[in-house]
Amino acid sequence: MTDGNGRALSEPPFWAGSQPPCGGPAVVALGGGHGLYASLSALRAVTDALTAVVTVADDGGSSGRLRRELGVLPPGDLRMALAALCGDDEWGSTWSEVVQHRFRSEGELHGHAVGNLLIVALWELLGDPVAGLDWVGRLLGAHGRVLPMASVPLDIVAEVELDGVTSTVRGQVACALTPGRVQAISLVPEDPPARPEAVEAVLEADWVVFGPGSWFTSVLPHLKVPALARALHETRARRLVTLNLAPQPGETDDFSPQQHLEVLRQHAPELALDVVLADTGVVDDPDALEKSAAAFGARLVTADVAAGDGSPRHDPRRLASVLDEIFLQKR
Amino acid sequence: MTDGNGRALSEPPFWAGSQPPCGGPAVVALGGGHGLYASLSALRAVTDALTAVVTVADDGGSSGRLRRELGVLPPGDLRMALAALCGDDEWGSTWSEVVQHRFRSEGELHGHAVGNLLIVALWELLGDPVAGLDWVGRLLGAHGRVLPMASVPLDIVAEVELDGVTSTVRGQVACALTPGRVQAISLVPEDPPARPEAVEAVLEADWVVFGPGSWFTSVLPHLKVPALARALHETRARRLVTLNLAPQPGETDDFSPQQHLEVLRQHAPELALDVVLADTGVVDDPDALEKSAAAFGARLVTADVAAGDGSPRHDPRRLASVLDEIFLQKR
Repeated sequence: MTDGNGRALSEPPFWAGSQPPCGGPAVVALGGGHGLYASLSALRAVTDALTAVVTVADDGGSSGRLRRELGVLPPGDLRMALAALCGDDEWGSTWSEVVQHRFRSEGELHGHAVGNLLIVALWELLGDPVAGLDWVGRLLGAHGRVLPMASVPLDIVAEVELDGVTSTVRGQVACALTPGRVQAISLVPEDPPARPEAVEAVLEADWVVFGPGSWFTSVLPHLKVPALARALHETRARRLVTLNLAPQPGETDDFSPQQHLEVLRQHAPELALDVVLADTGVVDDPDALEKSAAAFGARLVTADVAAGDGSPRHDPRRLASVLDEIFLQKR
Repeated sequence: MTDGNGRALSEPPFWAGSQPPCGGPAVVALGGGHGLYASLSALRAVTDALTAVVTVADDGGSSGRLRRELGVLPPGDLRMALAALCGDDEWGSTWSEVVQHRFRSEGELHGHAVGNLLIVALWELLGDPVAGLDWVGRLLGAHGRVLPMASVPLDIVAEVELDGVTSTVRGQVACALTPGRVQAISLVPEDPPARPEAVEAVLEADWVVFGPGSWFTSVLPHLKVPALARALHETRARRLVTLNLAPQPGETDDFSPQQHLEVLRQHAPELALDVVLADTGVVDDPDALEKSAAAFGARLVTADVAAGDGSPRHDPRRLASVLDEIFLQKR
């Protein structure tokens, strides 16, 4: 899909002007929210065979309201993943701004993201979540496909410890706001149907990338959808974990990189990994982290992948460059 | 803009499969709502130089809510005009269905048309009503341009007579619901700024088409926007009025076709017309109607342009065929 329009972007992202990659490994990126956005912003520069498999457990904000009002999957994480993959031209960047635009008012539309409304409308019209997302992908000229990890909206239930007492908290917002420390998560329903397209993408991938992202609510949920978890274990793809740059307030305060891996191990004890990628700046104990990686059968790669401005964001260009080297086995 | 997709439509409109016209006169269609939709559905088959100039006085439904909540032009009539012009292929028809889709719920989104939200988002992002509409036009692959008649939201004030007493009623919804008989309308603000693009389109047109549509609230308001009214009087374009098939309940109960023309004359005493087009079935007194047309300097053309199923709808194919003959001076 082209609009025959080649005017320059007002604020070009780092990939503007460069040719999108032609070829590259088949990569599936797992996650949700800003972490997945960062991962996709890098991966789009590395491969043209990119699929995002996105969590559908959000119950806050615009997504939560749509989910409650219309009984649909929460669209927000899906929308953000689509925006990360938007076309390089004026057409793609304009529609990406439109879908990311939020209404601000003192009325009923306040806070709704336009893309959420558009995605939900397509779902209502077409009756198929994947077909609806594919249409928005075509609108944006997306460099890749965005799939929900499950066919039904999910709730995250967190086991939370506070002052030595363990309790459970239900819902993504509640998990993020709990004063206690999240120990583990499970899903309601417990055995949700995975999206077959997501399972297939994982089975056919060359690389599967976990994270970065909110560890308990965006990265681990995929391993709790049985058919998807099975595919993640059985795929012949190599598996890479991109560790976070900063602990998630509320969720993973004070978590070291090793503890992130430990929690992953608790949720998927049989999972093998090939590479653990950590920003140099977050590694306080390289030996311990190497050991944690080795417990998965993985090697540790450390590199400067942070934005460099002190913010806990990955620099998409740096992350792309390192991922490219890893995929090409140059690193 | 094409998406390289040529799959057949599930329910093809009458123009599907036929080539869109190449050439044809520059036509400006004035109106709003379902009447303008009908007019555009016909005109798109007659010319590829088509501009809709649309009323912006709606204060009901989704448009009214958006206007009050976000302080924008009411987008509904503009959206409907864009949908009438959507591309012939699967791309155009799918996005047309999306923009026409309305949410149904027991919550805050109930009744909102998706296209209204999309148009408003583009207005907020781009800060220019015409640029926003042009983007939605490109999305739909629209066969023509859709412009608001004024740059600010308008209110219609109707002079209403009931049991011999005259009063005024403000707002399009109130006008439609009043038990009294509308005598005349004016606008608030009284001297709204016309959209320059609309004025220019009228001045450069070969034909200007008034109606069909709600007479007082969709057809006459254009003549109350001073700069637009001036252009409608001064243009060298020929002017055609398409009369309604049925009186508008509340607005024009029991109005004969002659009375429609009389009301038009009261609102624009200096306006000259070239053609008055009436469906054969609504003409009860051909001589009287011919005289009313002659008072504008116009000739009367009667033809079978109704849908033929008893509904008060124009058949776009029949209307297109008659308009084509009129424009080619074969009728």
